[in-house]
Amino acid sequence: MHPYRSMTCADLRKEHVGQTVRLAGWVHRIRDHGGVLFIDLRDHYGTTQVLADSDSPVFKDIEKLRSEWCIRIDGEVKARDESLVNSKLPTGEIEVYARDMEVLGASEELPLIVFGDQEYPEETRLRYRYLDLRRAVMQKNMTLRSDVVSSIRRRMWDQSFREYQTPIITASSPEGARDFLVPSRLHPGKFYALPQAPQQFKQLIMVSGFDKYFQIAPCFRDEDPRADRSPTDFYQLDMEMSFVTQEDVFAAIQPVVQGVFEEFGEGAKVDDVWPQISYADAALWYGTDKPDLRNPIRMERVSEHFAGSGFAIFAKILEQDGTEIRAIPAPGGGSRKFCDRMNAFAQKEGLPGMGYIFWRDGGEGLEAAGPLAKNIGPERTEAIRQQLGLEKGDAAFFLGGRPEEFERVAGKARTTIGDELGLTDQNRFAFAWIVDFPMYEKDEETGRVDFSHNPFSMPQGGMEALEGDPLKVLGYQYDLACNGYELISGAIRNHRPEIMFKAFKLAGYGEDEVRKRFGGMVNAFRFGAPPHGGCAAGIDRIVMLLAGEDNIREVIMFPMNQRAEDLMMGAPSEPAGEQLRELSLRVLPRE
Amino acid sequence: MHPYRSMTCADLRKEHVGQTVRLAGWVHRIRDHGGVLFIDLRDHYGTTQVLADSDSPVFKDIEKLRSEWCIRIDGEVKARDESLVNSKLPTGEIEVYARDMEVLGASEELPLIVFGDQEYPEETRLRYRYLDLRRAVMQKNMTLRSDVVSSIRRRMWDQSFREYQTPIITASSPEGARDFLVPSRLHPGKFYALPQAPQQFKQLIMVSGFDKYFQIAPCFRDEDPRADRSPTDFYQLDMEMSFVTQEDVFAAIQPVVQGVFEEFGEGAKVDDVWPQISYADAALWYGTDKPDLRNPIRMERVSEHFAGSGFAIFAKILEQDGTEIRAIPAPGGGSRKFCDRMNAFAQKEGLPGMGYIFWRDGGEGLEAAGPLAKNIGPERTEAIRQQLGLEKGDAAFFLGGRPEEFERVAGKARTTIGDELGLTDQNRFAFAWIVDFPMYEKDEETGRVDFSHNPFSMPQGGMEALEGDPLKVLGYQYDLACNGYELISGAIRNHRPEIMFKAFKLAGYGEDEVRKRFGGMVNAFRFGAPPHGGCAAGIDRIVMLLAGEDNIREVIMFPMNQRAEDLMMGAPSEPAGEQLRELSLRVLPRE
Repeated sequence: MHPYRSMTCADLRKEHVGQTVRLAGWVHRIRDHGGVLFIDLRDHYGTTQVLADSDSPVFKDIEKLRSEWCIRIDGEVKARDESLVNSKLPTGEIEVYARDMEVLGASEELPLIVFGDQEYPEETRLRYRYLDLRRAVMQKNMTLRSDVVSSIRRRMWDQSFREYQTPIITASSPEGARDFLVPSRLHPGKFYALPQAPQQFKQLIMVSGFDKYFQIAPCFRDEDPRADRSPTDFYQLDMEMSFVTQEDVFAAIQPVVQGVFEEFGEGAKVDDVWPQISYADAALWYGTDKPDLRNPIRMERVSEHFAGSGFAIFAKILEQDGTEIRAIPAPGGGSRKFCDRMNAFAQKEGLPGMGYIFWRDGGEGLEAAGPLAKNIGPERTEAIRQQLGLEKGDAAFFLGGRPEEFERVAGKARTTIGDELGLTDQNRFAFAWIVDFPMYEKDEETGRVDFSHNPFSMPQGGMEALEGDPLKVLGYQYDLACNGYELISGAIRNHRPEIMFKAFKLAGYGEDEVRKRFGGMVNAFRFGAPPHGGCAAGIDRIVMLLAGEDNIREVIMFPMNQRAEDLMMGAPSEPAGEQLRELSLRVLPRE
Repeated sequence: MHPYRSMTCADLRKEHVGQTVRLAGWVHRIRDHGGVLFIDLRDHYGTTQVLADSDSPVFKDIEKLRSEWCIRIDGEVKARDESLVNSKLPTGEIEVYARDMEVLGASEELPLIVFGDQEYPEETRLRYRYLDLRRAVMQKNMTLRSDVVSSIRRRMWDQSFREYQTPIITASSPEGARDFLVPSRLHPGKFYALPQAPQQFKQLIMVSGFDKYFQIAPCFRDEDPRADRSPTDFYQLDMEMSFVTQEDVFAAIQPVVQGVFEEFGEGAKVDDVWPQISYADAALWYGTDKPDLRNPIRMERVSEHFAGSGFAIFAKILEQDGTEIRAIPAPGGGSRKFCDRMNAFAQKEGLPGMGYIFWRDGGEGLEAAGPLAKNIGPERTEAIRQQLGLEKGDAAFFLGGRPEEFERVAGKARTTIGDELGLTDQNRFAFAWIVDFPMYEKDEETGRVDFSHNPFSMPQGGMEALEGDPLKVLGYQYDLACNGYELISGAIRNHRPEIMFKAFKLAGYGEDEVRKRFGGMVNAFRFGAPPHGGCAAGIDRIVMLLAGEDNIREVIMFPMNQRAEDLMMGAPSEPAGEQLRELSLRVLPRE
């Protein structure tokens, strides 16, 4: 017989009764039922009930076992009494009577209990991650992650993509975040960088004549940690295609992402129509470029109804340039209590408040209530109601000013209203492509024009568009929003050196600077670059959504803590003096 | 119609004749046949012949094209004349008459010609890698690599393994090579390290209760470059299993590796019997722990025939302790010319030479020739012949002394003899497990005992074995040799803290030192660690063997050069002063 096991802890069924088996696993729980010891023996695959009474030759040894000891058991498969069958457990019809037992790995006192649902501080969980990972939910999350990544790979191959690995120890590739640097021993004083994304390499792969590339790629950004972001390394589904338009990229990636959500969404509705919404419309309708479309609320411009109206605050606001009044319709929100709560929400978010109107039964039919309705009068109020398509029992909230100053709060209010009124379908994955991002933005303080997102994107209209007002230039650039998260970001690239230099010039970068920072790619474009484009999807975030978790660390095997430390491995740590000498480095004393 | 292409350059056949198509790709070659221009238009998938004569509206534009310009062509599919059909090309029955043409990406003068077989210095190839990669052989190598990795993954899943990602920015994990360090910005003066292998993490995954792990894992070693080694990052198939013996690991990995070689070996014989050879036997028989078993020559000990013989040099050597005489049989090597050449080979390798005997037809039957035969006389010569099973026309070479001093050269001589005599089957992949590695070795100079290979391996015989002579302790440790390369290395791990501390103590490491260096893993073993083992296979090396290349850079998309530089991207480079300040580092001036 095998020295450790003849089968796993998930395998035994009624038909095995009478067989002698060997099992190995962990003591999940051990209970003493009046001289009979019951062990839930657990491995990666399942749990089997093991028992021993005083007739068992190893009763005394089993008595000494504690939770999480790793053991081997030899025993006889017995049928459970009808009344003791556990129908929730695949092995619930049998139990194993222990005749021999060996401790494979004993355990000291546990800093974290594996069975049950006890909560532990994150520091404890990460320091003893190997115990935390033994818990059922973590086993499930990691299995899900493994399955999702494998499914993504298969689906990319099905779309005729090939996976190619790109360098990890490489050159700095400025992507907006901070690089991790790696000092070179062979070249003292020089440093490599870890890639923030394989952006330049995947574009070089296209210039190299490979048509469809993808990679489940490790990416590295020295960023301050957040719940939905890993502070050091994380994984992207990175892809790029040659000879394509934006629509080709969408057509290639939608079946992959939609398929994965359908496969692992556990029955949640997965939208198969992915609307394309311009960046400008997303800001107007949803107050964000990553809208949650499960929430049906769409904001609207209602400035005309307030211009010159009796509501002096808004009327005055509208006299200034660049201002608007926007409405958040709230179907079913037509009570003063709800409206006041939302108004308080806006105040907590730093705005003066949100005006509102709500419609109720006034005895003689529909009545508009709330201070705003009185100020602007019945005609304007009715015009607003008709524009927004609201009825009795509904409400609308109003925000005024320069959109960039209230849009973010408006978006949050929309989310809160959708949640509170139960309008947001929690059991659904809703996707939307956000398109037509502006290429440039103006820094309000310095007046300087800079890239608003990715400098490598092709401007819509090409060279000609760059001759006009930069702030009006849109890029072939797109994000995929899902349930309020940005899942994918991508672009059709600017593969023409002359257009690229012009685009950078508008943002204040000279040719020398561009060559210095992106030399690898810019040089390559001189030798017959094909038009190309692609995108990258956050793997950790996809798994997080599918697992129903709201912290990315729940779907990463060994994550860093919020201070970018690995408490289990003791990283980062002080290097040996010899290591620093080899690298020609000295650490500066703290100030 | 799509703005770039209606099909690829590999798609057109006779049945498309008469259709109007749109193709995009690179001008592979352009030829002028007396007023008719022929373009071989190439993309990732194939090549299509495009032609234009002076009737074509774009004749003048096409005249200006040069190799490696990226273009779009619209045209009409025409059948080639019977006499002009190219049966080697899938599209060889047709050509496309150009009616429209657009330059998508022009090219400057090329530093490297893509068509043809011209050789370029490696520096040129790496600096312009995107051109080098457009060449047919590199397209094939990268496609092969992509397919091999995908096949490995599929085969690991078929064996019930799951892929889990382990951290890349982590703690130092001493594996014998030098770590790459990554300075921490949030913790000034502290450093992360890039993993030399996910060794500790995969063991922690086993302690976490995951049963079968694998990963196509990036590994990082700051090593001096070699032809079969990347100087920075490289990929391993890393795997680990719980509750297993050495035989279980072999049974899991053989179908994966054998299957991959059968799938991509292009008809070469792939051995399905993988012998297990002890480290000691491998040294004796093959003079190396990574023998090439395609070569049938097996060396033997022949000391007894020389002890006290008339060949004074060997007789005298044998009077000293620890010496041996070994024979390399050379079937078919029975000529003085060949024997003298091999003798000269040994001298070039730094030995005094190799004695030899060869057997020829002496008129009255078999005659043993060569100085050695005379010195030791006919009886001893005949006994040697019989032991080695040699016949007329064969030879044998002899080396004497302390094995560790001549074994390496003996191994090289065996290889050369096998190659020169045509004994080595070039069209075969021959595998062998090398097992029973010694746990410890003694430094001849210091007399200190240290680990000879992996300190994490379980000693055969467990704790008991460690009570005796350390130099006699063997480990559950194994390598897979293939055609003279080490493809896989692995071990059953030492999962018991008390045995681990004892094992380290024998090598002079105290408990504190072990905890400091391997704290993450050693701590975990205190909480119910399962027995486990696994191995790691070099992906780059497997692809290199399958591609028939002898330099690893031929199968890596963007490799570093021999000085660990990326000439294309300009890495490593000098950091900005601001970056160093953020990291609290100063570069020391050169001495």
